[in-house]
Amino acid sequence: MAGCLSIADSGKMENIAFTPGRDGVAIIDQTLLPGEERTVTLTNREDMYGAIYSLMVRGAPAIGIFAAYCLSALANQAEADEFEGLYARLRADAGYLNASRPTAVNLSWALNRMLGIAERNSRRSISEIRDLLYRESLAIRDEDISMCRAISEHGLSLLRDGDAILTHCNAGPLATSKYGTALGPILLGAERGMKFKVYADETRPLLQGARLTCYELEKAGVDAVLICDNMAGMVMKNGWIRACLVGCDRVALNGDTANKIGTSALAVNARYYGVPFYVLGPTSTIDPGCRSGGDIPIELRDPDEIKTLFFAKTIAPDGVKCYNPAFDVTDHSLITAIVTQKGICYPPYEENLPALMENQGA
Amino acid sequence: MAGCLSIADSGKMENIAFTPGRDGVAIIDQTLLPGEERTVTLTNREDMYGAIYSLMVRGAPAIGIFAAYCLSALANQAEADEFEGLYARLRADAGYLNASRPTAVNLSWALNRMLGIAERNSRRSISEIRDLLYRESLAIRDEDISMCRAISEHGLSLLRDGDAILTHCNAGPLATSKYGTALGPILLGAERGMKFKVYADETRPLLQGARLTCYELEKAGVDAVLICDNMAGMVMKNGWIRACLVGCDRVALNGDTANKIGTSALAVNARYYGVPFYVLGPTSTIDPGCRSGGDIPIELRDPDEIKTLFFAKTIAPDGVKCYNPAFDVTDHSLITAIVTQKGICYPPYEENLPALMENQGA
Repeated sequence: MAGCLSIADSGKMENIAFTPGRDGVAIIDQTLLPGEERTVTLTNREDMYGAIYSLMVRGAPAIGIFAAYCLSALANQAEADEFEGLYARLRADAGYLNASRPTAVNLSWALNRMLGIAERNSRRSISEIRDLLYRESLAIRDEDISMCRAISEHGLSLLRDGDAILTHCNAGPLATSKYGTALGPILLGAERGMKFKVYADETRPLLQGARLTCYELEKAGVDAVLICDNMAGMVMKNGWIRACLVGCDRVALNGDTANKIGTSALAVNARYYGVPFYVLGPTSTIDPGCRSGGDIPIELRDPDEIKTLFFAKTIAPDGVKCYNPAFDVTDHSLITAIVTQKGICYPPYEENLPALMENQGA
Repeated sequence: MAGCLSIADSGKMENIAFTPGRDGVAIIDQTLLPGEERTVTLTNREDMYGAIYSLMVRGAPAIGIFAAYCLSALANQAEADEFEGLYARLRADAGYLNASRPTAVNLSWALNRMLGIAERNSRRSISEIRDLLYRESLAIRDEDISMCRAISEHGLSLLRDGDAILTHCNAGPLATSKYGTALGPILLGAERGMKFKVYADETRPLLQGARLTCYELEKAGVDAVLICDNMAGMVMKNGWIRACLVGCDRVALNGDTANKIGTSALAVNARYYGVPFYVLGPTSTIDPGCRSGGDIPIELRDPDEIKTLFFAKTIAPDGVKCYNPAFDVTDHSLITAIVTQKGICYPPYEENLPALMENQGA
């Protein structure tokens, strides 16, 4: 079945199973990974919206491709005899789907591209427009495959065989069409026999790093170590990381980059420890409408994602290695003051701490 | 019952229930909080070791007090007619308990202090030595109560009514004898009618911030907002935090401070965003044997704490507020390069990103 892709396609993992010519979109439910690989078919816009909001499909490029597939399927379902009726329905469906997640620009980008195809072919028959929409959705996917491949090649040029890489969230095949963005260089290099070691932030609250990145790396045979997000600083302090590679959901014209929560805190640590910090993504993620990061809308989500164990039945693949230090050491240069029962001690600590300890009283 | 403390002692929460004159130590099992308040009594050294290792009792000062209680109870159980037999048994028990967790210095500090009492009273009767050990363990607790009170007063002098504070892990009453160290100023201020807002890092992998800090703040009526660890950077970037307050497990003579994993990454972000970063703890946490952080042993723990949901049946109190942004924005100044399908874009991004987007090909 042309276009029906398998996540298990060895070493070239692709994620979005699309059944062409039908009225729905089949996807692997990413909320069940890594415990279960279940494919679900979405046939109405409410379920499609829900699939994006609930992260059954996620990752900026994947959401764009998925939304294009959805709009094509919805066009096939639409009861319309003439362009105006079809186009009104498509605009309504696109607007509805676009509201599912505000931060990733790829969603609106793909939907607008699909609407543009319909609009520019308003004189054609409904059947021809439906066919063009279908072809456009495949083109968006195919372009994403080439873009990910090119991103992977460019990214790989920044790495050396044997490097240890730190990544956050998931920007691999599951988040794109193939290879991925941030994981692309690693998977491409692995195909060529290069050996990387990847430290994967688990990425709270929804654990995409633990559930999806570790799952993909394990499938690709890449040496992976799972860490909690708050361990990334220590791993860099240990001198273990050659570079950080992360994806992006929207890039402003000045380079400010929206990505999964925690990315900016990671970047601050990378700068502090002198570790190169690379953002990888297609140019469709750059939003000319945003001059700086202040223009990027940030999605606020359900508190229960933090407060409860939410949907994660399985946190990580069974076999994954973990690095689990219970403590870390904060350099004295970062501490404003040390407050003890004997008083408040300011730098220089080497002079003032011993004096404090000798101080009688309290 | 003198010395039998209750966690529900309103506004002055204390954590370690000690039943004097008996052969065991009763504690609240902190691994079950906030879902269940269960008291368990530990009567043999294996269970005492297990209680420390499994975090039924945790927090550097609390571990010290608990270990002193344990050694007193074990002394009462010891079959010994003369000092040498008793002391040999105590040394063995202290060495055994001391191996349960290596990073917090308070554990060995309290055990050595108890051994010192026995050694200095070697000519007294076994019964007298047992009594002195018991009194010493209570003295360690009472001193911790005064130290926490003094730390809280000193810490409070650094804050203003209405401040928003960020804290990591748990350094409240459950981690000490009373008030706590990092939470002390907040709880003391709250007793005096001051209004603080506390952002509590959940503190993966074992969620002490979500489970214990939020539980304590809720009991004390302090406005609390639970965040995932990777959100702390964004909260500071938002300009919402007046100061970070954290506890400590061991402080080197140069001020380098070991504390719960993630503290150092938080400190790097606090420095970047210009937020004061205060470490709070008793002077017994300063280890003259450590010149710098490199001398502090860091405990590595079971990978299953990261890979599975482990013991946390309940992640946070029902009523706690959460801040749950799905994304954050990384400032362009922190990004080494942006890798796209069209090539690798280096700063200045404002010039180079538009040029890249106009670039045909790929």
